[in-house]
Formats: sequence, structure tokens, C-alpha cells
Amino acid sequence: MTDTSTRETPFAPIHDPATRGFASDNYAGVHPEVLAAIVAANGGHQVAYGEDEYTMRLCDVLSDVFGHRIQVAPVLNGTGANVLALQACTQRWQSVLTTSSAHIHVDEAAAPERVGGLKVNVIDTPDGKLTPELIRAFADREGDEHFAQIGVVSITNSTEVGTVYTPAEIRAIADLVHERGWVLHLDGSRLANAAAALGVGLRELTTDAGVDLLSLGGTKAGAMLAEAVVVLDEEVAMGTIFLRKQSMQLASKMRFVSAQLLALFEGDLWRRNAEHANAMARRLADGVADIEGIRLDTEVEANAVFPVLPREVSERLMERFRFYFWDETTGQVRWMCAWDTTESDVDTFLAAVREEMARDRG
Amino acid sequence: MTDTSTRETPFAPIHDPATRGFASDNYAGVHPEVLAAIVAANGGHQVAYGEDEYTMRLCDVLSDVFGHRIQVAPVLNGTGANVLALQACTQRWQSVLTTSSAHIHVDEAAAPERVGGLKVNVIDTPDGKLTPELIRAFADREGDEHFAQIGVVSITNSTEVGTVYTPAEIRAIADLVHERGWVLHLDGSRLANAAAALGVGLRELTTDAGVDLLSLGGTKAGAMLAEAVVVLDEEVAMGTIFLRKQSMQLASKMRFVSAQLLALFEGDLWRRNAEHANAMARRLADGVADIEGIRLDTEVEANAVFPVLPREVSERLMERFRFYFWDETTGQVRWMCAWDTTESDVDTFLAAVREEMARDRG
Amino acid sequence: MTDTSTRETPFAPIHDPATRGFASDNYAGVHPEVLAAIVAANGGHQVAYGEDEYTMRLCDVLSDVFGHRIQVAPVLNGTGANVLALQACTQRWQSVLTTSSAHIHVDEAAAPERVGGLKVNVIDTPDGKLTPELIRAFADREGDEHFAQIGVVSITNSTEVGTVYTPAEIRAIADLVHERGWVLHLDGSRLANAAAALGVGLRELTTDAGVDLLSLGGTKAGAMLAEAVVVLDEEVAMGTIFLRKQSMQLASKMRFVSAQLLALFEGDLWRRNAEHANAMARRLADGVADIEGIRLDTEVEANAVFPVLPREVSERLMERFRFYFWDETTGQVRWMCAWDTTESDVDTFLAAVREEMARDRG
Amino acid sequence: MTDTSTRETPFAPIHDPATRGFASDNYAGVHPEVLAAIVAANGGHQVAYGEDEYTMRLCDVLSDVFGHRIQVAPVLNGTGANVLALQACTQRWQSVLTTSSAHIHVDEAAAPERVGGLKVNVIDTPDGKLTPELIRAFADREGDEHFAQIGVVSITNSTEVGTVYTPAEIRAIADLVHERGWVLHLDGSRLANAAAALGVGLRELTTDAGVDLLSLGGTKAGAMLAEAVVVLDEEVAMGTIFLRKQSMQLASKMRFVSAQLLALFEGDLWRRNAEHANAMARRLADGVADIEGIRLDTEVEANAVFPVLPREVSERLMERFRFYFWDETTGQVRWMCAWDTTESDVDTFLAAVREEMARDRG
Repeated sequence: MTDTSTRETPFAPIHDPATRGFASDNYAGVHPEVLAAIVAANGGHQVAYGEDEYTMRLCDVLSDVFGHRIQVAPVLNGTGANVLALQACTQRWQSVLTTSSAHIHVDEAAAPERVGGLKVNVIDTPDGKLTPELIRAFADREGDEHFAQIGVVSITNSTEVGTVYTPAEIRAIADLVHERGWVLHLDGSRLANAAAALGVGLRELTTDAGVDLLSLGGTKAGAMLAEAVVVLDEEVAMGTIFLRKQSMQLASKMRFVSAQLLALFEGDLWRRNAEHANAMARRLADGVADIEGIRLDTEVEANAVFPVLPREVSERLMERFRFYFWDETTGQVRWMCAWDTTESDVDTFLAAVREEMARDRG
Repeated sequence: MTDTSTRETPFAPIHDPATRGFASDNYAGVHPEVLAAIVAANGGHQVAYGEDEYTMRLCDVLSDVFGHRIQVAPVLNGTGANVLALQACTQRWQSVLTTSSAHIHVDEAAAPERVGGLKVNVIDTPDGKLTPELIRAFADREGDEHFAQIGVVSITNSTEVGTVYTPAEIRAIADLVHERGWVLHLDGSRLANAAAALGVGLRELTTDAGVDLLSLGGTKAGAMLAEAVVVLDEEVAMGTIFLRKQSMQLASKMRFVSAQLLALFEGDLWRRNAEHANAMARRLADGVADIEGIRLDTEVEANAVFPVLPREVSERLMERFRFYFWDETTGQVRWMCAWDTTESDVDTFLAAVREEMARDRG
Repeated sequence: MTDTSTRETPFAPIHDPATRGFASDNYAGVHPEVLAAIVAANGGHQVAYGEDEYTMRLCDVLSDVFGHRIQVAPVLNGTGANVLALQACTQRWQSVLTTSSAHIHVDEAAAPERVGGLKVNVIDTPDGKLTPELIRAFADREGDEHFAQIGVVSITNSTEVGTVYTPAEIRAIADLVHERGWVLHLDGSRLANAAAALGVGLRELTTDAGVDLLSLGGTKAGAMLAEAVVVLDEEVAMGTIFLRKQSMQLASKMRFVSAQLLALFEGDLWRRNAEHANAMARRLADGVADIEGIRLDTEVEANAVFPVLPREVSERLMERFRFYFWDETTGQVRWMCAWDTTESDVDTFLAAVREEMARDRG
Repeated sequence: MTDTSTRETPFAPIHDPATRGFASDNYAGVHPEVLAAIVAANGGHQVAYGEDEYTMRLCDVLSDVFGHRIQVAPVLNGTGANVLALQACTQRWQSVLTTSSAHIHVDEAAAPERVGGLKVNVIDTPDGKLTPELIRAFADREGDEHFAQIGVVSITNSTEVGTVYTPAEIRAIADLVHERGWVLHLDGSRLANAAAALGVGLRELTTDAGVDLLSLGGTKAGAMLAEAVVVLDEEVAMGTIFLRKQSMQLASKMRFVSAQLLALFEGDLWRRNAEHANAMARRLADGVADIEGIRLDTEVEANAVFPVLPREVSERLMERFRFYFWDETTGQVRWMCAWDTTESDVDTFLAAVREEMARDRG
């Protein structure tokens, strides 16, 4: 229990700002440039609910990034972005097709189902990536009223298991999706990491690859609390603005949400942060590559590492550094790097891993 | 259209921080102490989704404020707080009883209905306040399966029309509500203004008056983006934590939401801000009291003024200061004061009002 | 508690087929011609879920009745018909505008809200009828994302209070509704009674008057369990077939639902039944007209009578005949006549009313 | 297009009552005893919405069958029964665990998701049956707010693939389910077939085996349109009556629904019908057992046969007899027998199968 008697002022830190781990890119704080942008947006009155200068500029900036037929709706979190996007591009009776590891399926507490009334149909795929073949093999029973008709396919890039779709891979999916009369949604809570990993632009990986609408991630990329639904083809979405309010994703003082996204996307802060996080994951992966008894089954393409190591080793490590099991049955764990992970953080952690592995073998 | 070419860095202001109006307390920015608290909470890693030091301290602080049987769930906006609270204290088949001016009825885009499946039954009341008599007169048809059974009564304090419930008025409602086996919810997006107006404590006006659960407002009280559901009697609510995630109100980097609420409620910042906003509304009301042709039908008890003035006057004023019509048919408008409204803002505005009224009569 | 030991076979009656009252047209049984139609539809196999001969013929028959651009979806009950119809003609973010006495508002247990996510906005109107003036006076706040945007206006004919809209009255509403870009829905659970009362055809009162889609009542008109959504202008509704299944209104052995509707609407059984029920209500109203102490505030235009009489009289009468209070505060009761109400039923009841009124005065 | 000119009266048959196939037990009509029961329930007035003599007797009769702590809610179709049952035994934030072949997952058009807000989590199992092992292996992430918490496990008996759970198998699942604090739901749309196949009583297979609540099928067992939710342990369900109305499953003239269920379950009609249908499936299975080129992968335990045969053979057969592919990729088809399938129907069909197989080989 925190001792509330010890703090001089409400705005003195009560945590240790020097501690960092590998549990999640959501454990990191806010990048100084984003914080500076928030501070700069303060003062005076600005029209609430999005008619402010920052939100208007954000629309301009994202038009430059993603193309000029877009609609931008800043929202409050990733689940909000996904569920808003999926609702905006489907009819009431339609459903979603995605992977069995998709965040919308396993980590959003049935928000798509409860808030959107959307059934989430899933396809198993070990690398977290859909392919045209997998989609074709899925029995979608078009026109059969007993089956919730597919309206949208949702992919995640970088994926929940740390892999990355290339523009060509997305284009192949998009072509099939459009041929079926469906819409292609991209959960881009780590889109920055995917683009950084591939060295391509955000537009190349979305609009130009056939993505129809997008959940654009800001929080994991270094913001405090800022995501956006970006409709890339305005014909696929209807009522986005009404649905955002109804889905409880409309911020009153929206200038502060938009200012964060501006800080990331007006310049190249998103890319700098993502490149750094990816490099730290690479360093971590390279560091365990030669440790006997640790296996890396999935490619490290973005900022996540999914090693399999002895359970006891993980448990001992977890006493020192916070991270999560990904699959308790196999002993697979997830190590995430963030924009603020340092080389020294990685090296210290690697030393601990080696130490615990040695103890295990000892 | 904003010229995106003119900004040196993404974190330079692009708005005029000297402009303030009377449109909404949501047009105001963030109080410096709240901003300082956000900055102080940055740095290092903190467990995401609420297991951080700031959220834990917030629970302690709010326990001191509201009593020791509470549950605290910081959320992202007022609609989110209301819809989460109403879901947490009702069964699937139950409905809500409130006033016809309630925010949940007229300004939440059917989020209670769509997200919560909650029918909102309303009672007309000119001053925005329910009474035991009004509730008794409502035919709630208990036990009749054709009628959506009432599960919760929701009141707002200060109300949407700027009036204030006293603790005794709330207690009278609470007693009836509990006698019926229902729950009493309070939409406290401006609870600070009510408490400041009455000179009473937050607990006096909630827990001690029989309120069962609360949407605690932070944003209008000087925060950037921070509200909370506070369950005052843990027996009335179930699954709050699960419902918050499902209702898309769970922030990943929650320390920054909790830090804002700490800045407001650990000390007395909430009261200082609310007293100031209320005083400015008082000054504004007093200033128009002697202007011929302007009528004040509703009491100015908190930070809102609802005068009736000639439509043309309002329209000319709106070209100079942003504010809204409340009732276009009667010419009633709403002027809101915020934590940052200055005496000079009020006086300048009053001068303009006098000027336009004179022009009207001229 | 029913004694289960006394019945020879499961298909012997266990109720008294000679007893009838004035509680509801839903208390009546099935008209013999409808029962005959059910029996005739039995035997052999027919494709389930609506691809049967009876459903196909029903579509033809209703095309002859309502016009040739219609879609027909037989469903299972009136609430199902209404909620399906309202969903089929609205977008996710839209809401409904109707009267405060509408069945969808007060008697459908929040099914529109919970199943459809549809907010029901209401307008008070003593005679249960909307007018263009009432609709114009309703502040619908078009384009304001905080207000659940109106998508459909729903009227009931004959209304819940026993009044009847003429084709001209409906046309006036329809013109305004279409001017606003909305859709006009008609809850026609007693459409037969309205048409019979006016001596007009069903098409005159719906398609030709500008109604866009319709809940067509069968059960109260003499069927066992059969209603239909009839889309009169196929452009206003989308996904009706998918939404019917999703809303749990799709019968597997649908031939038996369609056969009932055929029995009513292929010939003029609907009109014969409704004319009879209306005539019995007329007889009942005429019978109480000269009883001192009984007041008829609302016109008896269809098959319902809403007299106001002393509460004690009603309570004593209720011990002998089942019927309901409509408004307990005023003493208003509802007496419904059905297709099977006889002149003798009415006269016996009237004698009892006179007797109890006399006892009251005595 | 049906010629509407040819029918003398609306109640003459317009279909061929001599044609029967193997497409579905929903293609069959109504058993004569059920029809007789409907006819017997007609005449006079009965209180609507379930307060009638037939519904009251049904409660008594089902208490004798299933035990004395039950609640009975007759409903309109199987999807309605399932979605009502699942809602009644879960909290808003909970989800369902079932098999990937479950009707609620693949054939209910997302009604559980849209109407109930219920996520349906699935486990693959070739024989359509869950086991404690399969459930234990499912990562239910109890207490993790990001994962929609399991509240109910749903099994189907006889299953969608024609297999049958024994009482012992159900008991084993029930014990685990209860240990976890969950509820066990049984989709019994073909419960009669399962009980008949095993030669056990309905109670043995449900209440006594640990099932908590049940969708009791009437329609496939020989009724016209009648199912019921039967809560076996009244402590697991809440608000069933309110939820039934809200889920649009409340019949006004309910006596006719209850009379059908009485016809089936007051005596042993359910068992006679099911035994017959099962026997016909056995005869069909035996008949193809020795046909070269036809494979039976799944056990024929109830009234369904799932053979794999050459696609061209199936397609030619489908021109003569209506039935469906079960899995188009493997050539597996589904042949269902109904209460009215005759030995001669089976033998005629077998002859056709042999003929088409011979033609294929020829």
C-alpha cells in the first residue's frame, strides 16, 4: 500500500523513473517531444470535440502521409480504434475475419462483440499473418443467412507475434478482399514498427497496398494516450464521426490527443522511436541466439522477441524483470522493447538471462 | 485550412493561448498543476492498465475522500464513465430512470442504449432535478416483463442546467431509490462545482447522502482527459474492471490518467478551480441582472448561466465570442465559466453584451 | 396448480373454450379458417426457413396487396417485427422517433435498445398520433454527433389508444419524413382494424400513403402466431433477411407461419375479422355512452374502448371479467374486442357494468 | 413462380404432401398428435403471454420430467432458446465456451454476439463433443480483464455431427465446469434423439448429469414451432422472464406453443418420434455400409448420417432428393431422418444412391 503521507506536492514523482523492463511497450512513458507538444497545446480556449487547431492540422498532416481521400478520427485507445473502425465499415449483420492471435480476438474483452455486435471469425496461422490462401480456405458461406456474413478482414502489422507484412503481402490480401466485396482493415497499433522494420513509408504499407482503413497507433509509439482511426478510402466507412461518439471514444479536450499524434507524425519521431525499439529487440534476439537452451521459433522482425526457455528460468527472471508468458504450455515468453529501452537495459537483462540459464544447467 | 508549412517544430503552439470564451468548460486547457503532475509521472516503466503507483495512490486518496468501501476505475471520458457505471450496477434487462435534460439522454449519442443495451426512461423537470415526488409519479410497472425494469436512477450534480442538489435533496431521493431496490448513480462531471457552490465536502454530497456510485469528473475541473467511476458501495456494482475494458475505457498508460486525478483530488485543486469558475458565473450573472431585456429564468448555482436574450443579440455576440444556444425556440443561451475564466474575461464579455443589447434597442 | 392426472390424452382441451373477456385481442384463439390453413399446410417435406411453397405464395399475395416493389419477411411476433424493421432501415448510429405511447417505447422491454442498439426518442401526443407539426417541433439536432441522429419515424395504426390515422394524415407525415431524409415505419399490429375502420384498402393506407416499411400484424387479426415485416420500398431496407436470422425471428418450419398469413390476406378474412372486432367495440362504446359516471375521452375508432370509470367499479368488474387499467391514476381502463367477441359477450358485459355502476351509486 | 389463380380456398394445400427427403428434420411437418393438441387448445379466451392453462400444465409436466427446481420459458425457435439461455446464466462481461461445430457458433448468424453481446470461444473437436481434457487445455485466462471471461460452457446433445454424449460424459464435463464456477448449458434441439439413442430418460441426461440449463427442442421432435428454455437449477439463471421478452421470444398466444410441447412431453411422443428417426438413420447407414466408395467417418448415433461420397454422385442425387453438403472440400454430406421418414423413403433413397454410385463407377 502506498503511503500517502510522504509526498510533498501532488506533482512530485512517486515512482522510480530509472526502472525499465521488457513486459510491454505500454509500460514506457511519453517521449519528451510528445510531452512538449502537449504543453505547447495548452493555454487559452480551443473548441472542444475536435474543432480545434491541432486536430485540423492533424488532418492535413495525415493527408500528406496517407493520401488525400482520408478521414481522421482521433480516439482514446487501441481497442476503441479497432472497434470504431470495424463498425464504420460493416453493416449491422456483418462479421469480421481475422487471425486467432489477433488482438481484437484475444485481448479486447469481447468489445467487438458487445459494443459492435460483431462476430470475430478466426483463422489459425502460426506467424500471425493471413494469406490469400488461408482466406480462400475459410468457408465464409456467402449469402447464407445462418452464417454471419463476412464484411471486413482485419490484419495487424506488425503482428501480435512480432512478424511484419510486406506491402506486397498486404496487396495480395487486399486484392482478394476487394474481389469478395469486403473491406481491409489494418490494426496498426505498431504500424510504426512495421514501417521502420521494412524501411518503407506509412503510405506504401497502407493506402498504396490496398488497406481501406486503419487503426493508427500512437501510444506504443511514444505518445501518452492517442490513437486514431484513419479511413483511407472514404467510400468504405460511414458515420465514423457519429460512431466515435456513440462508442465513447470522443475526447472533449481533443487538442491534447491530436497534439500527441502531431508530435509523432508531423515529423519523423514515429520512425525514430520505432527504429530504436526494433534495434533493441534485434540486440536482445542476437544476445540470446547463442545461449544454449533458448529457442527462437518466430522471426524477430519488429520490437518483440518470443523466445522459448525453461519455465523455471523464466519464473526466476520474472522476479527481477517484469515480462509475460505468451504460451504457458510451451514456455514461450514475450519480451517487448520500447522507444525508451536502452542498450544498457538490454545488456543487463541478457546478463541476467545468461546467469539464470547457467543456474538452471548448474 | 491550417498552413502546415509555418511551424518550426511539432511542439510549438499553433493556437492563440490568449483567447477564451464562454462556450464550455471543455474549451479550457489543463491547469498548470495537473500538467506538472503529468510531467512528474513520466519516465521509466510503470505497469500498464492500472497496476502503477499513481493509480494505487489514487485509490488511497479517493478512499480518504469518499470512504473506505469504494472501488475506483479511472476512465477516459464522461460518457465512458456514465455508461460504465450504469452497466456495472444493472442487470442486462434493467433500464435507467433520469431527467429529460440528462446528459446521458440528450448528449451521449445513444451510447447507453448501444453499448449498454440500457433504455433511458426520462422525467421532465424544469430545473434539471429529480424529486421523490417525480419518481413516485413515474409508472415504473415493476415486475411487468413488457416494461424495461428500472434498475438505477441517475441524477447529475451540478445539473445540466446549472442547478445544484443539496445533500438533503439527494438523501431524500436515495431513500426512495433504495426502498425500491434500485441503485442511485450520480453523474458528477461537475461534482466539484456543486460541492464548491454548497461549501460542502465531496463525501457529504455523495457517500453520506446515499449515492451508490459516481462518475467523477476531472476534465471539466481542470484536467486534460481524466474521469473515474467511483463505486461508493461495492455491493451495488459487479464486474466493473471487466466492463471497463469491454467498454473500451481502459487506458494502457493509465498512470497519466491517475496522475491528473491525483493532482485534482489529493489536495484541494478541484475546489479552488470550481470555486473560481462558480464565482465567475456569479459575476457574469450579476453583470447581466440589470441589463434590460435579458432574463435569467434559472438560478445560477454553479458555473453556468442560462440567460434569455434577443436572438439577434446572441447571434451578433456569437460572432465575437463562442457560445451556444440552449433552446433556439426561446432564445435561451448557455454561458459557461471555466477554471481559467478571468474577471477581465467576464467584464469584457459583459461590455460586449451591453453594447449589442444597446444596438438592439437603438 | 393444475391437476395433471385428469387428462385422458395430451390433446384434450384443459381450458374452458366458452369464456371470453375484454382484456386483449391476444387472449382470443385462432380463427377456424387460419387453423384450417395450418392443417392444410401439413404433411410431406417442405424446404425450411422460407423456401417453401406457402412463403413463396405469400410473397405473391402480398405483392398484389401492397405493390410490386416489396420484400416480405414473415416473423414470429410483433416486437420481433418492429425491431427487425427498425434495424433494417437505419444505420448503426441512428435512432427512432415515435410517440410516448408507442408499443416500441412502453411495451417492448427495451428490445429496440438492446437488440437493435436503437434509442427511442418520443413525442407526447394525447391521441397517440404524430403530426408534421409535432415532428417539426422536436429538436432533432441533425448532424450533431452528441445526439443520436434520427433515422426513422415510427407510427402505429390503429394506435395504441384506439385511434386511426387516415391516409391523408399519414401522407402528410411521410412527406415531412422523406424531406428530412428519414424513413417512415408503420407498426401495423392492428393495421387490419384501421383499414376496416376507414373502409380503405391496405395499400391505400400504407404504400400509397408514403409508408416505407411495415410490421404487418397477423396474430391479433385472428392468426395463432404470425407477423411479417413488409418492406414497401426496397431501397429503404438492407440486409432484412440476414437481420431476421440474427434477431432470432426466423422460423424453421416457416410454411406454417406463412400459411396463417395467407389465410388472412389471400382473401378478405383480415377485413371480416377486423370489421367484426371494430363493430363490437362500437357496440360496447355505445352501450356505456348513456351510463352516468362513465366518461369516454378518446374516440372509439377501431377495436379498443378506453373509458374512465370509478376505480372501485373497475375492480369489482375485474373479478368477473379480465381487463386492465390503462392509467391507474385517472381510473382509465382498456376494453379490447377481438375477432371472436360476440354481441352477447358485449351485452352481458354491459349489464355487469351497469350493475356495478348502480351498486357504486347505491 | 406459384400461380395464385389455382387455389379454391386459402386453406387447400399447395404443396405435395407425399414428398419427403433427407435434407433436414426441419423439412418435416407437424406430428398429428401435436396438431390435435393445437386444435384442442383453441376456442375461448386464455390469458396471453403465458398465464394460460397450457403453459401452467407444461410447467407441471416438465417438473415431473426434469425435477422440481426448474423454471420453464417456452420460446419461438432454437436460436432464441440458446441465446436466451446463455444470457440468463451469464453476466454482461462473460463469454461462452463451446465447440467449433456448435450451432451457436456456425449457424446462428452471430445472434449470441449481437443480441447477447456474448463472445463465443471455440474448441476444435472432430466428433462435436467436448471433454474435460479439451476444456482444461483451453487457455481461459481467468481474471484477466483483457480476455472475455468464460461464464458458461455449452454442449449440444445429440451433437451437430450426429454423435451422442452419455450421462457419464456430461457429468465429467459438469464437474469441471462447476469446479471453475461456470455454468453448463445444453443445446437440446435434438435432446430427444440423444435420449432415445441411449435408452435413457431426459432427466438422466440433463439434471442428473449436472446440466444447469437447457434449450429443449420441440420443433425437430415433431412440433410446428415450439422450443423452451428449461432452467434446471434456478440459482444459475436470473431474469429469464424479462430477458425472454427483451430477446423477442415471448409469444402472445402462448397456449399454442405450450400445447405443442405438452403433446410431445406429457406422454412419450418425443421418444416415439426420436426412436423412429434414429432407426431410420440406422437403416440408412446400414444400407450404405456395404456400398463401395462410400465412407462413414463418424458414428451414426442419432438421426443423422454423414457419409463421404464422390462429389458427382452427390450432385446427381441432389437433383432427385434434397440434402446438403457438410464439407464441400471432402465431399462429406449430411442425411437427416425425421419423425416422418418411412422405411420406404430410406429404401428408395438407398436404391438411388446405389444407382448413382454404379453410374459413377460404370
